[in-house]
Amino acid sequence: MLGTKQLDVFMATFKPLLDEELRAQVEKLEAPKVIKQAMNYSLEAGGKRIRPLLLFATLDAFNVNPANGLLPAAAVEMIHTYSLIHDDLPSMDDDDLRRGKPTNHKVFGEAYAILAGDALLTYSFQLIGEMERGTASDETKLKLILEMAKAAGAEGMVGGQVADMDGENKQLALEEVEYIHIHKTGKLLAFCVIAGALMAEAEKEQIDLLAAFAHHLGLAFQIRDDILDVEGSEELIGKPVGSDKVNQKSTYPFLLTIEGAKRALNQHIELAKESLRKTNLQAQLLFEITDLIAFRNH
Amino acid sequence: MLGTKQLDVFMATFKPLLDEELRAQVEKLEAPKVIKQAMNYSLEAGGKRIRPLLLFATLDAFNVNPANGLLPAAAVEMIHTYSLIHDDLPSMDDDDLRRGKPTNHKVFGEAYAILAGDALLTYSFQLIGEMERGTASDETKLKLILEMAKAAGAEGMVGGQVADMDGENKQLALEEVEYIHIHKTGKLLAFCVIAGALMAEAEKEQIDLLAAFAHHLGLAFQIRDDILDVEGSEELIGKPVGSDKVNQKSTYPFLLTIEGAKRALNQHIELAKESLRKTNLQAQLLFEITDLIAFRNH
Repeated sequence: MLGTKQLDVFMATFKPLLDEELRAQVEKLEAPKVIKQAMNYSLEAGGKRIRPLLLFATLDAFNVNPANGLLPAAAVEMIHTYSLIHDDLPSMDDDDLRRGKPTNHKVFGEAYAILAGDALLTYSFQLIGEMERGTASDETKLKLILEMAKAAGAEGMVGGQVADMDGENKQLALEEVEYIHIHKTGKLLAFCVIAGALMAEAEKEQIDLLAAFAHHLGLAFQIRDDILDVEGSEELIGKPVGSDKVNQKSTYPFLLTIEGAKRALNQHIELAKESLRKTNLQAQLLFEITDLIAFRNH
Repeated sequence: MLGTKQLDVFMATFKPLLDEELRAQVEKLEAPKVIKQAMNYSLEAGGKRIRPLLLFATLDAFNVNPANGLLPAAAVEMIHTYSLIHDDLPSMDDDDLRRGKPTNHKVFGEAYAILAGDALLTYSFQLIGEMERGTASDETKLKLILEMAKAAGAEGMVGGQVADMDGENKQLALEEVEYIHIHKTGKLLAFCVIAGALMAEAEKEQIDLLAAFAHHLGLAFQIRDDILDVEGSEELIGKPVGSDKVNQKSTYPFLLTIEGAKRALNQHIELAKESLRKTNLQAQLLFEITDLIAFRNH
């Protein structure tokens, strides 16, 4: 955390609202107790809530009440959480720890972990469908559902995960590594910004600029992740440092050297901010989130 | 197959259209080849396409062109297929064969099987969102998305699968077994009928009658499954006969004797038909599907 004041106040307001929304949405499900526990376990594992924050901050930039975005923000956090649960499975990354806590399948077993992920993914679409009319028209809800499905599915996050697994133990070129990150992380981050813009009924030109902003922000996010994996503290990031190197993954520091990776990070941060400036929005919070991502230490 | 003429003609028309729709929808994805192959492998494994058929036949009963239902029918078949892929995984039912072919994870490995399931589930919501305006209003599409999410998620199919796993190696009461079947199989079957009615903008009373029809049809479907598992031919049903008994599952024949199970089957078939008659629809195809389910031998 950088501790910039406006973003801190904003997060102190909306993060608890989101946490409560997530808890309440799972609580009200008429479903076997164990699946609700498994869903909640990973939702409550915390994390930075960077995706909801991006959505709220985009609404704020358009002078729309960020609280209007609670349901789509909860939806996107559920999709992110499901992807972590499935990625951690023994047949995927086989991780025992996530954010310093035992992974979902370590606590609930593989079968319930898979099903908790399935349930979170399914529920995310329901939450968009249940947005109140005052916050989004039927047409907007359908656009959100389409964009979210594209960002999360085979053409987005799932496709990125497949490419990531395909590339394991191979020496990848930079464009292959970027394909992975754009799809595995970038598309869902971009969806958050686009969702805010769609809810605000923004013009296409502004949506395109925000999409470009999110594209560079997503790459910056991943490059920072790779740099942290080399330089970060295990205690802060909650997973063993250097795990990418052990797995022989193709990372930015590996491809560009650590100095080259830092230069690339700064370039993407600058390009992100440039796109944001061109929107002519009062986007102070989005600028601060960009710096938060560029300089975070976990 | 019973070989009733009207249903045969109907299936000969719409099953190829559905198969082609599924193939084309996966083909057009801009995604890594292996994930498209894994998605297609299980979609093409065939099966009875009973869910799309129910949707088409419901549209037909309302004098709506069944071809209008191709996208939601493809969506529901994708959800059914994803559930089979995940259910077959080693940490779930650990099945090597499905419809006489190696299961998805046997061919593509566990990781890609999980991701293919995730991609199919995600894509199903996109397909509903992409329905043409002439076939469903925005309001109808949103209703379909909500109903499909409820039928497939923690309150529906996923919840049923959880309860099924929870009940393994336990002696369950009849109501517990029915909870499992209503959720694991019944809700998605019911969605198909309800989806057709929603597309036809049916009155609430008719939708309720069709939901009752589908409820009894779903239970009949499962009881017939259990009876086939005791009496059926391995060659016809494509999996080892008697596998439920080996797994000590609580089945209708186990709880009610084989004769009792057959009586329960007949009762649900009669109750299904009674609800259907009360709709006053020209529902010849739905009646024939009911008989097909009651008397099928695989």
